[in-house]
Amino acid sequence: MATSEAHRGSAAEQNAAEQNAAEQNAAERDAAALDAADELRALRDRFVLDDTVYLDGNSLGALPRAVPGRLADVIAREWGELRIRSWTESGWWTAPERVGDLVAPLLGAAPGQVVVGDSTSVNLFKALVGAVRLAGDDRDEIVVDAASFPTDGYIAGSAARLTGRALRAVPAAAIPATVGPRTAAVLVNHVDYRTGELLDLPGLTAAAHAAGALAVWDLCHSAGALPVDLDRHGVDLAVGCTYKYLNGGPGAPAFLYVRAAHQERFDSPLPGWNAHAEPFAMAPAFTPADGVTRGRVGTPDILSLLALEAALGVWDGVDLAAVRAKSLALTDFFLDRVAVHVRPGAAELVTPVEHRRRGGQIALRCADAAAVMDRLIARGVVGDFRPPDLLRFGFAPLYTSFADAERAARELGRALSEAAAHP
Amino acid sequence: MATSEAHRGSAAEQNAAEQNAAEQNAAERDAAALDAADELRALRDRFVLDDTVYLDGNSLGALPRAVPGRLADVIAREWGELRIRSWTESGWWTAPERVGDLVAPLLGAAPGQVVVGDSTSVNLFKALVGAVRLAGDDRDEIVVDAASFPTDGYIAGSAARLTGRALRAVPAAAIPATVGPRTAAVLVNHVDYRTGELLDLPGLTAAAHAAGALAVWDLCHSAGALPVDLDRHGVDLAVGCTYKYLNGGPGAPAFLYVRAAHQERFDSPLPGWNAHAEPFAMAPAFTPADGVTRGRVGTPDILSLLALEAALGVWDGVDLAAVRAKSLALTDFFLDRVAVHVRPGAAELVTPVEHRRRGGQIALRCADAAAVMDRLIARGVVGDFRPPDLLRFGFAPLYTSFADAERAARELGRALSEAAAHP
Repeated sequence: MATSEAHRGSAAEQNAAEQNAAEQNAAERDAAALDAADELRALRDRFVLDDTVYLDGNSLGALPRAVPGRLADVIAREWGELRIRSWTESGWWTAPERVGDLVAPLLGAAPGQVVVGDSTSVNLFKALVGAVRLAGDDRDEIVVDAASFPTDGYIAGSAARLTGRALRAVPAAAIPATVGPRTAAVLVNHVDYRTGELLDLPGLTAAAHAAGALAVWDLCHSAGALPVDLDRHGVDLAVGCTYKYLNGGPGAPAFLYVRAAHQERFDSPLPGWNAHAEPFAMAPAFTPADGVTRGRVGTPDILSLLALEAALGVWDGVDLAAVRAKSLALTDFFLDRVAVHVRPGAAELVTPVEHRRRGGQIALRCADAAAVMDRLIARGVVGDFRPPDLLRFGFAPLYTSFADAERAARELGRALSEAAAHP
Repeated sequence: MATSEAHRGSAAEQNAAEQNAAEQNAAERDAAALDAADELRALRDRFVLDDTVYLDGNSLGALPRAVPGRLADVIAREWGELRIRSWTESGWWTAPERVGDLVAPLLGAAPGQVVVGDSTSVNLFKALVGAVRLAGDDRDEIVVDAASFPTDGYIAGSAARLTGRALRAVPAAAIPATVGPRTAAVLVNHVDYRTGELLDLPGLTAAAHAAGALAVWDLCHSAGALPVDLDRHGVDLAVGCTYKYLNGGPGAPAFLYVRAAHQERFDSPLPGWNAHAEPFAMAPAFTPADGVTRGRVGTPDILSLLALEAALGVWDGVDLAAVRAKSLALTDFFLDRVAVHVRPGAAELVTPVEHRRRGGQIALRCADAAAVMDRLIARGVVGDFRPPDLLRFGFAPLYTSFADAERAARELGRALSEAAAHP
């Protein structure tokens, strides 16, 4: 009987294993079919990739193939041979605006409104102080989304302190009821860096405007992941980084968007010589340059800026609507596969399921999240861990495949099981 | 008689030509002897150089040989293969302080007081607002050297406006008589970017301190050109760029020095998440990091920062006193040769002759200076033009030879003569 039971058990296990294998084969066929039908699949060749499933493009984008050769030329020829002549002959001086105009279409911005340089934090400081000054002296508060990426809150606090304004941090949902005649500016992150929730840019911008306030958006987690449409929605100022979905490289320079209508009155708190109307006149008095150039500060960081310029070539001919469609399809597929591979209760979905509330990343909450992510990375799937308990998976549609999503879900299930078995 | 006169004229011309040739040969022998005796001459091999006499290292330093290979590795392996893991495994996260500690000895600063990142202008803003806050609320003015590089004045104006202080621009010589109980901070450029005049850092720092004010120095034109001795002279805060005599590459990140004694109370106006005590805790409240790390702002610009790190390798084993001695010998020799090659009255020396008042560059004033510099560049000698009438020649002692100085003076004489003949 024991033998018989063992035999029956073994047969059941075998059945289950066969069923799993069949199911797995079906899933892999599904992924392969989705990849075959993916109109963006050829873009993957524009990147340097390997066997790793890289789902951290929401933190540091993969290396575009064009970058190493371009940077080698910038260093050896433009710097090494032409040296100082490159400021004019190699177009270094105008790179902040030129690269800005490459970023602009990805933000839904007409040319002449985006300048690239400095970090996101520094640009946020320019944008917030600039917004407060545009709003006028009778508006004495800055409202920020309380769930913002921390630097946004810290910098907003400094901008408020230096301009004599109050800082009010409220949940994003409370912003429409919070803004009023005292509000100078509202700062919101387009996508929550932890949960991956996509905030309502048109609605919150309209709410700020209805109160007579300016809307300032942090696009770090949306630029390159989905259409942003800054011009269409009347956003006043925006900032964002270029090293996530824009693949500009580690710490690549950030961007600042100043709506054309505001540029003439935009009054930067960092009026460096690059923002001057005649920078080489070396005049003692500051006269701001026309246009978005007045958002520049000091000498532009050429190596990083030109690496970014080369990296932005991957967007040639890419339709952002297709990027968004693939992003949602990828994350939908990933969630379906997670439901199959991850046993119920092992991880909780933190990202909203509704498309209109989802950015380009999926966040899951689980026990021992740091250890689970370590195991997952050891299994060749790279996401990241955010304290205290979040696993984040960024799906960069230009180089992430449905097969990647399938493998990630499968390995996640294994990593969670391992971690539960060996806590 | 006409024939005889013509003959005599021809003989005199021949004599003069022979004398010139002999004199020229002697000068070239002098230059060769000085180069042979130069203890720093081997350093030249650490740079990519060509037949050009490059005297613009005070604007953009030449390319160090180590940079191209290092950056290729940073891009291909650290970014392309390790990707996000490089923030820890490749030491990206700690690069601002690590590179700062490479810059520190060149400034006479003990470790832990220099952080690298952002532009000079942005660091100046941190330093000035930080200085005003350190000085306390009862001091309501910032005093700046009126001849400062323009960005210093613009940024000081913004810092004054945002902190409710007055800005007083006075000639450097008037600073000791100007500072008083109302002075929060004094900002001075160590070397005047036009005239090349070296200002009295110990004396002006002492004058600021005697009035109870803080001394903030802009070292853009002195770092790497001469010993600065920040610690010894009690300088409070300092900033500077790394793309001139430090050869970090176009727009390389700048540095911020915060004297150890001030770090605990240093209150940055740009408290980005990188300045937080626990940046990855993503805490809603800002708690500044210990040490000079609180001078950081956003994500560091890794490509430029690591190019700079590789570039700083040229300083291995280099004695700054020897650099200064060579710098003065080079500029002395250049001035001697200019006196020979440039006819009296064709150009006026603007740089002080006294060693204690001279930085690493020589500036000459002349008519049609822009055209003269164009001709000089066409003759293979690269200096630069600063409006309205200045020719600047930077002597980077690590890669400039006495033969370069001789050739530069000779070609300058020719360029001036040509310009006078064909205005």
